Amino acid sequence: MLTPFDDTYFMKKALQEAETAFNRGEIPVGCIIVSQNTIIAKGHNLTEMLQDVTAHAEMQTITAAANYLGGKYLKDCTMYVTLEPCQMCAGALYWSQISKVVVAAEDTERGYRAQGGKIHPKTKISFGLLAEESSRLLQSFFKSKRR
Amino acid sequence: MLTPFDDTYFMKKALQEAETAFNRGEIPVGCIIVSQNTIIAKGHNLTEMLQDVTAHAEMQTITAAANYLGGKYLKDCTMYVTLEPCQMCAGALYWSQISKVVVAAEDTERGYRAQGGKIHPKTKISFGLLAEESSRLLQSFFKSKRR
Repeated sequence: MLTPFDDTYFMKKALQEAETAFNRGEIPVGCIIVSQNTIIAKGHNLTEMLQDVTAHAEMQTITAAANYLGGKYLKDCTMYVTLEPCQMCAGALYWSQISKVVVAAEDTERGYRAQGGKIHPKTKISFGLLAEESSRLLQSFFKSKRR
Repeated sequence: MLTPFDDTYFMKKALQEAETAFNRGEIPVGCIIVSQNTIIAKGHNLTEMLQDVTAHAEMQTITAAANYLGGKYLKDCTMYVTLEPCQMCAGALYWSQISKVVVAAEDTERGYRAQGGKIHPKTKISFGLLAEESSRLLQSFFKSKRR
């Protein structure tokens, strides 16, 4: 039996953030951070609106979660993110020592594994949850941009 | 003959930022970004004060420079930074497509080369300018913390 607050539930929340990014003309990536079954931070890519390459969904959400918790380490938190983090975001996750990262779609070009970065050895990471939903959103974004 | 605005001049400005970090109890890393011989952004590590792992000198300075220029790419800019960027900061530099990065001290443990990250293929990077001054500051910081 599924609990109402399982990984799928939280990834759907991250996908809602990605949809918000899509509707704002941003590459649709969304992210939430959960602590003790509660969403403590959420965000979506804002690189175009802010004209800032550091404004990835994950970066904003890490900052917001640390602010909420009053400490910079996210040791008992889980991040749900709709696209595999890039090396910048993997580096931020590394420093945060976050417990767990759940990724929807893999990014075989710009993801941290392709770029050679790494997350903290204590962090558990999984890939593929609702990956199709995330990929579909990304594909329709890039299709609309090519038009 | 040295011009007043050579790499050494700008690295000294980055070292002044690192000293400010030191005096605030932060790991002493400083950074400036230069465009057309003008300092357009400067910053130092603020991870303790902000309790935010993303508040590295480079990250803040990239955001500030993009804000100054009104665009997210730093294609005609040079960063002077007192310690080799970590993978997070290298990732941000990658996305910014900055022209040139001048690094003082190398970081053989947490630097992006040790962690497996990379910067943009178009970015020129050099290491070692005023490295001793930077290392001395870092060493005296960590010595004071161990006391």
